[in-house]
Amino acid sequence: MRDLGVVMVVSGPSGSGKSTICGHILEDNKEDFGLVVSHTSRAPREGEIDGVHYHFISPEKFLENKSNGLYLEWAEVHGNYYGTPGDQVEKFVDMQKNVILEIDVQGGLQVKAKLPKSVLIFVSPPSYETLESRLRGRKTDDEEVIKKRLENAVGEMHKSSQYDYFVVNDELQKAIDSIILIGESERKRVPRLNLNEIFDSMRFPKFQK
Amino acid sequence: MRDLGVVMVVSGPSGSGKSTICGHILEDNKEDFGLVVSHTSRAPREGEIDGVHYHFISPEKFLENKSNGLYLEWAEVHGNYYGTPGDQVEKFVDMQKNVILEIDVQGGLQVKAKLPKSVLIFVSPPSYETLESRLRGRKTDDEEVIKKRLENAVGEMHKSSQYDYFVVNDELQKAIDSIILIGESERKRVPRLNLNEIFDSMRFPKFQK
Repeated sequence: MRDLGVVMVVSGPSGSGKSTICGHILEDNKEDFGLVVSHTSRAPREGEIDGVHYHFISPEKFLENKSNGLYLEWAEVHGNYYGTPGDQVEKFVDMQKNVILEIDVQGGLQVKAKLPKSVLIFVSPPSYETLESRLRGRKTDDEEVIKKRLENAVGEMHKSSQYDYFVVNDELQKAIDSIILIGESERKRVPRLNLNEIFDSMRFPKFQK
Repeated sequence: MRDLGVVMVVSGPSGSGKSTICGHILEDNKEDFGLVVSHTSRAPREGEIDGVHYHFISPEKFLENKSNGLYLEWAEVHGNYYGTPGDQVEKFVDMQKNVILEIDVQGGLQVKAKLPKSVLIFVSPPSYETLESRLRGRKTDDEEVIKKRLENAVGEMHKSSQYDYFVVNDELQKAIDSIILIGESERKRVPRLNLNEIFDSMRFPKFQK
């Protein structure tokens, strides 16, 4: 039975731990998951490698790609462009690999609109207190910034109703396992399968009504 | 996070191995799955225990229960009634246990109509050849009966398009695992969750738009 890979969008507020989760899944399941490298027009930061962390391209090239429909979703953040190249995603799906895209809710909804079979997974912190202490724990930001982040996080949380799955990150390994098994389970969903093709491959006779 | 149990209907043609799969799941996961005992108006066979294999009741009692809306689904087979008591199912769901109901596609669609959050899982043999050899392997039936069974099986297979999930039983343990993980995955689906209740329990402030 040939089942295509599943495009899994993972979103969640800052402090939900989504990056840690996605990092572990991609690191530990290289055979089952394809790593999609985003395009960005911002300059590489120290230690960032072109083609590994991002494909670094000029703003002109980004806009050209965008108008050619290359991006499954894109966003402008602080004057820089970020985009998920659809051809990379498609390549992995055809190779029967799942794809994890860590993007925000707005980007996730863009992906869903273009790929209705994609799966939107929202990662939530276990409680407001945990979120607050995680955001405060970073210690890099002043009170105003933290308050703004918390406010944004509350707003983000309420967008989860537009998502397909809601995973609470109260224990890292459990959250990782949940997301992997959502991918496995989704591969068996009927709307995703070509049943006629499957019946043919199983040599079932055509059904005579 | 309080997530209710999932009602999982498992169907498939005779010879798909669905009974073996359901038996193993219920036997090995008593903490996570509730065992619903069907009602029937047929007489107990040798070795069958009332309340274990079935609740054996009179046809009159069955019809009374039916008209009181007790059954989530019911069927008449060879003049005997069989029904799935909805109150048992509800009890386990409230206890946060998943429920597996091994019933035919017609019954499965009855359940889905009454409980839209139930999950319909179709178990398929890996190939027509395997199905044929499984049905022939029973050796109890003559050629006419086997031919009829194979024909019915082909008809059943094509009803799987109305189901939510399609699981190929090419390896027993893999099929068992697939069905268990579908249940786990489904518990995290947003349409099944009461997000406002969850946010309250996490002490998230109300969202001010």
